[in-house]
Amino acid sequence: MVYEKLFNPVSIAVIGASRDPSKIGSIILKNLRITYRGKIFPINKNADELQGVKAYKSVSMIKEPLDLAVIAVPANEVLNVLKECEKKRVAFANIISAGFKESDAAGIKLEAAIKTFLKSAKIKVIGPNSIGVINTNPSYNTSFIDPNLKPFEGKTALVSQSGSILSVIVDDATLGKIGFSKIICTGNEVNLNSSEVLKVLSEDAKTGTIVLYMETLENGEEFIDNAIEASKRKPVIILRGGKSKISLATTESIISSLIDENLGYRLAFKRAGVIPVKGIEEILSLMRDASDIRIKNDEIFVITNAESAGSLMIDALNAVGIKAAKLNNNIANELEKALPKECKIQNPLDLLGDATPERYKEALEIVSKLNKPIVVIVSPQKTFMPIETAKEISEIRLQNHDLPIFPLFLGGLRVEKAKRFLREHGLPDYSYPHEAAHIIKKLYEYSTFMPPTFNAYTKTKIKVNNLKLKENEFGLAAKEIIDRLGIRTVHGVAFRTESELQKAIKIIGYPCVLKLALRNTAHRGRLGGVITGIKTYEDLKKAMNSINTKAANEHLKVSCYELYMDAEKEKKSKLELLIGAHRDARFGAIMAVGLRAGRTDALYDTTFLLGPISDKDIADFKTSKIGRLIYKIAKARTFEEIIDYLLRISKFMDLNKEIKDIEINPVFISEDGAVAADFKLFK
Amino acid sequence: MVYEKLFNPVSIAVIGASRDPSKIGSIILKNLRITYRGKIFPINKNADELQGVKAYKSVSMIKEPLDLAVIAVPANEVLNVLKECEKKRVAFANIISAGFKESDAAGIKLEAAIKTFLKSAKIKVIGPNSIGVINTNPSYNTSFIDPNLKPFEGKTALVSQSGSILSVIVDDATLGKIGFSKIICTGNEVNLNSSEVLKVLSEDAKTGTIVLYMETLENGEEFIDNAIEASKRKPVIILRGGKSKISLATTESIISSLIDENLGYRLAFKRAGVIPVKGIEEILSLMRDASDIRIKNDEIFVITNAESAGSLMIDALNAVGIKAAKLNNNIANELEKALPKECKIQNPLDLLGDATPERYKEALEIVSKLNKPIVVIVSPQKTFMPIETAKEISEIRLQNHDLPIFPLFLGGLRVEKAKRFLREHGLPDYSYPHEAAHIIKKLYEYSTFMPPTFNAYTKTKIKVNNLKLKENEFGLAAKEIIDRLGIRTVHGVAFRTESELQKAIKIIGYPCVLKLALRNTAHRGRLGGVITGIKTYEDLKKAMNSINTKAANEHLKVSCYELYMDAEKEKKSKLELLIGAHRDARFGAIMAVGLRAGRTDALYDTTFLLGPISDKDIADFKTSKIGRLIYKIAKARTFEEIIDYLLRISKFMDLNKEIKDIEINPVFISEDGAVAADFKLFK
Repeated sequence: MVYEKLFNPVSIAVIGASRDPSKIGSIILKNLRITYRGKIFPINKNADELQGVKAYKSVSMIKEPLDLAVIAVPANEVLNVLKECEKKRVAFANIISAGFKESDAAGIKLEAAIKTFLKSAKIKVIGPNSIGVINTNPSYNTSFIDPNLKPFEGKTALVSQSGSILSVIVDDATLGKIGFSKIICTGNEVNLNSSEVLKVLSEDAKTGTIVLYMETLENGEEFIDNAIEASKRKPVIILRGGKSKISLATTESIISSLIDENLGYRLAFKRAGVIPVKGIEEILSLMRDASDIRIKNDEIFVITNAESAGSLMIDALNAVGIKAAKLNNNIANELEKALPKECKIQNPLDLLGDATPERYKEALEIVSKLNKPIVVIVSPQKTFMPIETAKEISEIRLQNHDLPIFPLFLGGLRVEKAKRFLREHGLPDYSYPHEAAHIIKKLYEYSTFMPPTFNAYTKTKIKVNNLKLKENEFGLAAKEIIDRLGIRTVHGVAFRTESELQKAIKIIGYPCVLKLALRNTAHRGRLGGVITGIKTYEDLKKAMNSINTKAANEHLKVSCYELYMDAEKEKKSKLELLIGAHRDARFGAIMAVGLRAGRTDALYDTTFLLGPISDKDIADFKTSKIGRLIYKIAKARTFEEIIDYLLRISKFMDLNKEIKDIEINPVFISEDGAVAADFKLFK
Repeated sequence: MVYEKLFNPVSIAVIGASRDPSKIGSIILKNLRITYRGKIFPINKNADELQGVKAYKSVSMIKEPLDLAVIAVPANEVLNVLKECEKKRVAFANIISAGFKESDAAGIKLEAAIKTFLKSAKIKVIGPNSIGVINTNPSYNTSFIDPNLKPFEGKTALVSQSGSILSVIVDDATLGKIGFSKIICTGNEVNLNSSEVLKVLSEDAKTGTIVLYMETLENGEEFIDNAIEASKRKPVIILRGGKSKISLATTESIISSLIDENLGYRLAFKRAGVIPVKGIEEILSLMRDASDIRIKNDEIFVITNAESAGSLMIDALNAVGIKAAKLNNNIANELEKALPKECKIQNPLDLLGDATPERYKEALEIVSKLNKPIVVIVSPQKTFMPIETAKEISEIRLQNHDLPIFPLFLGGLRVEKAKRFLREHGLPDYSYPHEAAHIIKKLYEYSTFMPPTFNAYTKTKIKVNNLKLKENEFGLAAKEIIDRLGIRTVHGVAFRTESELQKAIKIIGYPCVLKLALRNTAHRGRLGGVITGIKTYEDLKKAMNSINTKAANEHLKVSCYELYMDAEKEKKSKLELLIGAHRDARFGAIMAVGLRAGRTDALYDTTFLLGPISDKDIADFKTSKIGRLIYKIAKARTFEEIIDYLLRISKFMDLNKEIKDIEINPVFISEDGAVAADFKLFK
């Protein structure tokens, strides 16, 4: 395995090891000495020995093979050092040095030079601007984090682009007795990036959960693939930073104005089964439980000794979309027999303030037959025996190993011991209903993750590929492409002369829509260049005059018009949609379905689908607010037609990489189907 | 002050004091003995002395005056005991006994009897099913919570309907070194309810923050008044339980199906400036800071020594709607001069990994001139001096007492001391960006609370009051009332005979809408009893035949029709709305504005306003999604017309208490105004 030399290095060099104990190079050497049992080579031009270890002038002076080089020299020396390492056939380098793209123009240049060198080099690099790498088994630590902080072995691998966020998570996890398999700061990711590290860790048997902190990604599609493969094996938890730094749209389409960078990440994470988290505190809760607990059921049973705590728990579950499990008659009868008659047999099941550990045990034994996850609340009541109750819960857990049980012990200091007991026996422990519900929801979503399938997408065939546009296309020119794409459009004809107009009317009929044929749609809008509901020849002439007058005022010459059928009138349409796609720079095509408000072109709500559209995306669209509306109003056949349009657009975006945006707006929707009435293509 | 005897009692009796140390009556006596310096009278029929205190057979045997009686006798003896207390002129009783409405039918009866007795009694009662009352200054504790748990004096008053939730909050707060002014378990609230206690505490000088846990309320309007008065003086934090127990709608209106109990609570809390919380953990964070910190500005500046932590903080603030404050040129220049040239002068301001406490101080001094709240992040970096930095922050805080500063110290154990220092110096301390942003948002909302004004509502005059309906009214009968109310409606005429039809057409004209005049709108819908877009007499006859045929199939006789103008065609309407109101059992009228999707009657989105509509509600409606759409599409005049309709409906609901729901649907909206086309009144 190629990463053997990173995760189990025979020897590590510290290039830039320093005599000055306050210098990073010195702290790294110290951390390595404390943690690493292999051979260490400090590299320092001016020292023969550092911290009692023989030092070398350069890596070339070392005779033994070198698996990993830790580089902590000034930024402008890094490239030369890398070249020496390459010559020495070092397998991996971890560049700790900062002063690259994160700092200034000179740093950007230095980083670019390293990138260029690495394209043809064999050495693999983590960093620069990395805080280091920590492995727990076998152990080593190339970082300069506080040597007093000793992360210990556990199941979580932590990967972070930021050293400071990494330190905070390591700090708090270690304090909370949560261990790590590996801790990797990828820094500026000049070579090994989060995607690749994710792939490596997904195959690492010592890693049960992967936690990523990332701010940016280069190759979104590769990331999705790697994340899907990882999610099949273990939970991938991602905290993304820098969400507020949003880049601007690049085209003048409506659709691109609706989509920002964050949307791409959100859709990608969803597709890949990633567990997205909002903050560091969530990571800590999840780290403890994500490796071991699987929740395949979104109905939960709650057992409590205080009704109000039980109903707070149900409230919290409902708030995140988890339901209260219903009892069946058999189990209800059993409970009724076993419990005091004052107990109401319901969910939450209140065992009353005098509930003993035995009563908990009896109730749990019966309820566990439901085979649904159980939250067990123990709160300070008249009878309050947290340790003994914890022991009973742990027994039940042993008998039903696949049944998730979530103990929620309330009562501050008085339940500390019981909680420790639970944790030591492999049970999760939560402090509050809201927190528990939140984690349960995330674990449920992960546990039911299915890698995406693309059956419908694969079946979709279109006739347009590798389209080249000289400029953005609107009107009939765009319509022709949309027609070829297999999307129904209204009839439309262009005319320039009176005689062409006469022919056009014969084809189109009344009511009709007159449009100014101008490439620039902003112009068209300003000139009132779309006039609908034209019922007579007189109206039509009036409409043309109105446009001509406005154009003349702006010294524009109108030479060509387009005449369309009035789809709204013809089809008795009930809804108007925008359908289209925008090409996200990172994740590729994002399809959009927007609902226009009333009879206006104002978009009230929009739903997005990541391309290529998966079978699950289609299922999700059916249950989305807009999807349900369309289905309700326009029935199954029209709904399927819209799905078909979306699949075609998704395919179109994949086969026509030069197209930035496609915008079909409005699409008139009725039980008779979906018909597109205006069209735009942006390159 | 009437509550003097509750909060500073000269003497307390424990009725049901017991010899058995496991009994509640014994624990209460013990807690009282530990905490209370006044005179204690244990009452027990069979004892002369309990825990070394002289015992009495009954309260009537006591010669001294009694301020407070704690009652812990079996449920069926409580009424008699209360009567004795009343005779003895005891001012307050705290009924600890359970077994009332929370348990069974017999309990409900016992509770009703107590309620009846108390109507004419002078004694004021807290409970039954109360866990007790704890006062910290002067101190006493009538509760049976664990005597080892010693809540200490602080600024928070805690009021809870549930004993178990109360215990959990007291446990965790005490553990977290947060004190209380008063702790009151109101239990089943047979007499003193949360509203009244809220009022009392709002006037209590020792209470800086009020925390309420409630599941239900009886008089919603009284509660709102009391909560507004309380919010003017101090923050009121409410956790509501039992949200999942939703009661069903009582009428067949669409509007009532959109509204559940929780909506009323949500609108009421918003109006009253209450800080709603989702869980116990939020209460604890808020308790620490709510008494002292006021944030009048929703733009925050972030200072950090790690850019990624800073941008996580900005992300978290943005996610809750708080903006990043912009620097002005002067301050930017000052910062540029004071800080190392590598620092990018922006928000978040990264002081870099080698930031010293002095650099923090300099940056803080300059940024504080912006006069916007500041989050200061200190994370483990190359230079990491948390204590010294905490001291500098505390200095700056002393110099700018009204400027909120939120320190966010990251780094687990290594920042514990610094955090303690901050807390001891009156500064808040947070552990994570997400948590900090959440609390800042809540404090900002409270700090900018303004008691509601009703200028627009007061000016609104209507001509309908004290309306009596025999049954629900639809069609023209309802239209007549809506017309009187001052809401524009389409023309409509009823007809039964051919000659009436001829007259009707002359008045209404084409296109028109034919409606079956049936009281039961469900029938009308099923019979296809609303036919729109009728353009000729032939169409009209066809429409009548179609309805008649369907009616005949159901053996219904159609005797009366209504003919309306087709408002949609006339007005070129752009949007269709539902406007109406539902009378919430607890909080009174709730107005609704619903957006119909496209040209259909499906509601896509709905916004609600609590009656009477306040000036702030109007402002909020303007910025709501539906409000902005209406304004954009139909412009100011129509928008104002809709506001006027809502005010009229709000007044209507207040002046006509017998009306349950009013539903005007659709209302056609265009720049020409808002016209109602169908009308329903439910009693």
